Amino acid sequence: MDTESSDTTGNGLVKEEKIVKGEDTEEPMSLVDDVSTEYFASYEDLNVHRLMLQDTARTNAYQTAISDATALFKDKIVMDVGAGTGILSLFCAKAGAKKVYAVEASGLAKTLPEVFSKNGFADVVTVIHSRVEDIESLPSNDKNTVDIIVSEWMGFYLLHESMLESVLYARDKFLISGGLMFPNSAQIYAAPCQIPDLWKNHGDFWTSQSHYGFDLSPFGNIAKNLQTPVIETIASDGLLSDPQLLFDLNLQTVPSNSLEVFKDRRFFTMDQTGDMHAVCLWFTCTFPVVPGKEPVELSTAPWSEETHWKQTLIMLPDKLDFEEGDITGWEISLEKASLDKGSRSYRIHYQCLGDDDEHPVPCECGAVKCEIIKHYMTQSNEANNVDVDE
Amino acid sequence: MDTESSDTTGNGLVKEEKIVKGEDTEEPMSLVDDVSTEYFASYEDLNVHRLMLQDTARTNAYQTAISDATALFKDKIVMDVGAGTGILSLFCAKAGAKKVYAVEASGLAKTLPEVFSKNGFADVVTVIHSRVEDIESLPSNDKNTVDIIVSEWMGFYLLHESMLESVLYARDKFLISGGLMFPNSAQIYAAPCQIPDLWKNHGDFWTSQSHYGFDLSPFGNIAKNLQTPVIETIASDGLLSDPQLLFDLNLQTVPSNSLEVFKDRRFFTMDQTGDMHAVCLWFTCTFPVVPGKEPVELSTAPWSEETHWKQTLIMLPDKLDFEEGDITGWEISLEKASLDKGSRSYRIHYQCLGDDDEHPVPCECGAVKCEIIKHYMTQSNEANNVDVDE
Repeated sequence: MDTESSDTTGNGLVKEEKIVKGEDTEEPMSLVDDVSTEYFASYEDLNVHRLMLQDTARTNAYQTAISDATALFKDKIVMDVGAGTGILSLFCAKAGAKKVYAVEASGLAKTLPEVFSKNGFADVVTVIHSRVEDIESLPSNDKNTVDIIVSEWMGFYLLHESMLESVLYARDKFLISGGLMFPNSAQIYAAPCQIPDLWKNHGDFWTSQSHYGFDLSPFGNIAKNLQTPVIETIASDGLLSDPQLLFDLNLQTVPSNSLEVFKDRRFFTMDQTGDMHAVCLWFTCTFPVVPGKEPVELSTAPWSEETHWKQTLIMLPDKLDFEEGDITGWEISLEKASLDKGSRSYRIHYQCLGDDDEHPVPCECGAVKCEIIKHYMTQSNEANNVDVDE
Repeated sequence: MDTESSDTTGNGLVKEEKIVKGEDTEEPMSLVDDVSTEYFASYEDLNVHRLMLQDTARTNAYQTAISDATALFKDKIVMDVGAGTGILSLFCAKAGAKKVYAVEASGLAKTLPEVFSKNGFADVVTVIHSRVEDIESLPSNDKNTVDIIVSEWMGFYLLHESMLESVLYARDKFLISGGLMFPNSAQIYAAPCQIPDLWKNHGDFWTSQSHYGFDLSPFGNIAKNLQTPVIETIASDGLLSDPQLLFDLNLQTVPSNSLEVFKDRRFFTMDQTGDMHAVCLWFTCTFPVVPGKEPVELSTAPWSEETHWKQTLIMLPDKLDFEEGDITGWEISLEKASLDKGSRSYRIHYQCLGDDDEHPVPCECGAVKCEIIKHYMTQSNEANNVDVDE
């Protein structure tokens, strides 16, 4: 057997096709546990950052959002949380920022000054080799504030081991009132989906065939009931219903202590007949809109340009077969794994809702009853608004 | 950025294409550090084992070696070190073993009794949920010995985070004198190789182009000098020379304390003109040969059926261009990472040897001088042997 446990926990091995980001790189929360890796850049770090730079949908979105916003960046003080190779700091410097603090906890920070110098921004960008949580005061900054925070903090399905908490910490500590976040909002979407090829590798792998002449089906029951998210690119036509918006985070205002639990209860109307194998999750991010420019969205939807985030699939224990027009529902919760304080991974729990379960109010499932309720709620809201206006 | 640090350190995420094996599965040495994961089988465990079962070159080799050897297994007591899904234990039981101890440290052990029962071997196979190092006495075994040890312990380039130490521990503690190891030998081979596509993702990625209009070349020097092995499948025609055998381990006899350092110094004659980008490493394993049966070899060479081990590449800091007939040499050392006691990863150090460096004696490079020395050494050995015989 191979026993590679990770590319990024110091075991010193790289599999070319992977993109992984380790606890010793830009996950400052865990650096205290592994001081030995704090002070050098590993091949793994570099490999991850190569793959991130090669993710053009990701990097182009930031480049466009920032370079379109020179009016916002001109002469401003910016903080780049988790600067990595410094590419976002460079975008900000080029967009006219007066000062950029490139905050980077990993050993990559040691190389960053040379990068900024080579690109003519040695005077603009100041590298801070630290977790953002450990910064007491910003160099040459009496007010200890910044005007803009940029960060590429997103994890799989947005939240998985993301740097969001660190970014919100930086916002609450350093961002001036009225300051800007790049990105300034993030959304998680979902739809039921059909993924026959991946399904074959799920519980069915263990139960539907013999293995070298033997019955290994007992592992199938375990595999089916572990609701571990799977990261894979799926085709748009695998979606069995119109997607719905699950969570919409306003990054300017979302409280940093509101990330412990996300709960969702909703219903979908199937717009094709098929087997539902999984819930497909993805996210989008948007950036402050500059007058006269197109809004920039970084989308990881199945129909968007592929990114290294791909999509996230929560596999069902057993597939559910639906006819077009059927309604299905779920309760999904994402709870921060609590065993490990400082953990930034979530446990996902999925539960199927059936005909007897009550729909939320309002409900986007499209069923007649839910549409009628929505209609009256809209009317009522409008009436209330009229009252207020008068 | 995505911040997936690992599939197997409890962050609960699976990327479909990966094969990883975690510290909480069959790497008992580290279980003491993470007791919480000891008692359940994770999706990651199962995913890894699915991919191992799908590695038919690997599993077929064991199946053939064991089923061809019923004469050796009949009525014998066998230990399967790191039983995983139990497939090797099943092979042994079917081959006629009187008793199989399936030793498994991970939570998979809890499901194994049901697997053996379902396949009619509940009475033959005894599951021991433990690190092999923690087993004091074998159940119902007065002599506390076994006749045969089977294990699939191999890591990338054979040694990377392998279970070899655990297997040798089991051998020294439990195997009777004259007992058998399956496999009973393992070899590491190497050849200089040319891999232009992978080379583009190495240091050259950082230095040979601008990135979104910026110069990130300072990272190139770091990338070039981190001699981190890369796991990738390469084509046979990428080899620039005949491979040579670096290390040959007799698993029946190799001392368990001899795994700390492996050093190799050798020269190769290039049999084609090209750029040497890396040293390509791979391994083979062989099994006890049964009279009348073909020897079974599990080969991970570039020309063999692909396995999940692929090949391992040690990238050079800078490529070296050679003409056909040129001779190149190296000193390679694999040293067990010492920072972390109990670590089973190695640090690989490569150093290029040139025209002025002395060749070893004997030397397989094929140069005239080395061939002459080999010729005389062979003659001398034969003469000595004649003396002895007389």
